[in-house]
Amino acid sequence: MTGGKASWIAVDWGTSNLRAWVMGPEGTVIAALGSDRGMGVLDPDGFEPALMDLIGAYLSEDGRVPVIACGMVGAKQGWAEAPYVAVPCPPPGLSEASHPTAADPRLDLRILPGVKQVNPCDVMRGEETQIAGFLRENPSFDGVICLPGTHTKWVHISARELVSFRTFMTGELFALLSKQSVLRHSVAADGWDNTAFAEAVSDAMSAPQRLAARLFSIRAGSLLEGTDVATGRARLSGWLMGLEIAGARDYWLGREVVLIGAPRLTALYYDALAAQGAEVREADGAEIVLAGLKAAQEGITT
Amino acid sequence: MTGGKASWIAVDWGTSNLRAWVMGPEGTVIAALGSDRGMGVLDPDGFEPALMDLIGAYLSEDGRVPVIACGMVGAKQGWAEAPYVAVPCPPPGLSEASHPTAADPRLDLRILPGVKQVNPCDVMRGEETQIAGFLRENPSFDGVICLPGTHTKWVHISARELVSFRTFMTGELFALLSKQSVLRHSVAADGWDNTAFAEAVSDAMSAPQRLAARLFSIRAGSLLEGTDVATGRARLSGWLMGLEIAGARDYWLGREVVLIGAPRLTALYYDALAAQGAEVREADGAEIVLAGLKAAQEGITT
Repeated sequence: MTGGKASWIAVDWGTSNLRAWVMGPEGTVIAALGSDRGMGVLDPDGFEPALMDLIGAYLSEDGRVPVIACGMVGAKQGWAEAPYVAVPCPPPGLSEASHPTAADPRLDLRILPGVKQVNPCDVMRGEETQIAGFLRENPSFDGVICLPGTHTKWVHISARELVSFRTFMTGELFALLSKQSVLRHSVAADGWDNTAFAEAVSDAMSAPQRLAARLFSIRAGSLLEGTDVATGRARLSGWLMGLEIAGARDYWLGREVVLIGAPRLTALYYDALAAQGAEVREADGAEIVLAGLKAAQEGITT
Repeated sequence: MTGGKASWIAVDWGTSNLRAWVMGPEGTVIAALGSDRGMGVLDPDGFEPALMDLIGAYLSEDGRVPVIACGMVGAKQGWAEAPYVAVPCPPPGLSEASHPTAADPRLDLRILPGVKQVNPCDVMRGEETQIAGFLRENPSFDGVICLPGTHTKWVHISARELVSFRTFMTGELFALLSKQSVLRHSVAADGWDNTAFAEAVSDAMSAPQRLAARLFSIRAGSLLEGTDVATGRARLSGWLMGLEIAGARDYWLGREVVLIGAPRLTALYYDALAAQGAEVREADGAEIVLAGLKAAQEGITT
């Protein structure tokens, strides 16, 4: 292996984005790469070219390089399906990965599976690798990991296993309502109101059944009272998040909660959970997927 | 007035559609007309041409004809704003209508106001005229009128007045989630499952805070269990409707409920409410707006 060539390559391939880390000797990162060629815009034949465009320059002329990938790349509509592993289970490792043949003989590709739960029915793809990254640094953690996002995951972890989990569509609801519903003129694209957010979380937790009426009151408030669109945004977020936190009470009540995700979003969950007296902290989520892919490469998880 | 010419014209002008009834002597309907030129697709200058294209042939060469309109045509973005009347109030009548000047001197236009509520903040435009139509036939009604739709209204009626009301965005949530969310591949455009619907209503009423997790389970169910898309549709509808019925309990509990709306949708509300032991019946909603516009023309409501 010459300088600048990969020892192995870590890949996080979601619906919207493709990220790759070219790993050198002794855990160094030679290059961190990214593109917007996520699963959502690719045909089955488009995956290998999208990856080669990104990492091709780092491959040797001869010799195979291990590529370890996680995320929607392993879905049925992805490059090659990596069937779900069922909870309770540790984060899946290389022994459970699928091993599709690439056209380029230098690629030794492994795709890590997602995790499923039979009852209640639920799935994840990608978050299990973030969890593996967290457990690599915190092997004795016992509690709940919450991964806020489009589809927020709440995952009960004990003895290095995913015990159970639940997905809430809160982020997608926020995006649909703020951008594509009658509320779009009453909800700012940016801006915030901390008091309105905290009140909305509390409202939703005490009477979650009023959600659909509260939502319309955002529209009515802007028509009748000229309510500021930043306040509208904070209320919409607070009512949806409060509903989720009420629904996830079985997860956070009496357990330590670690938040992993984009800092701005995890900060909102932090505030909302702390207001309920939950024991909560934020983990640094920036490179946690890479840590999880390293854990798989090191064989820690299996 | 010659045969085939209008005595007056009733107009129901919403966001998506324009309907007009050309009224002859003694309450006869000379013509029932419609177009898709709703408020949503019209500039301020586009309203009068849209109306004239529809009704122009029924106007005399000379003489003025009263036109009584209700709905979003009276919104700020409509033809001419007809400011909201506040509850408690009877359905607004001609004395509260706005009276914009039309370019064509034959049009004597009156636009009926919508109704607002200050606390909790809420608005309606159009439904108040359906209510006027119901009260024209049922003047002594005391109870709750529920008008299912994109934005379902629950309205407490007593002594011929709207006492209070609440709007639920249930229909818009259903449309967004079934057509534009990750659930779109798991929810049929048509088809149904009565058992799944009834169970979903009951689930949502007993634990409304789990909504966002239940929603994602529709996706997980189709991935893991191949759940039928008709079942997905019934569950999505049932979870959203159950949430609303739980949130509207203050309205329907212990009061007679009348449903006014499209028969297929009101039948679902009927089933869900009857399962809760509510005293509920469906009114014929087909021409109820016209009855409400007649009530305004007759001066019944003021």
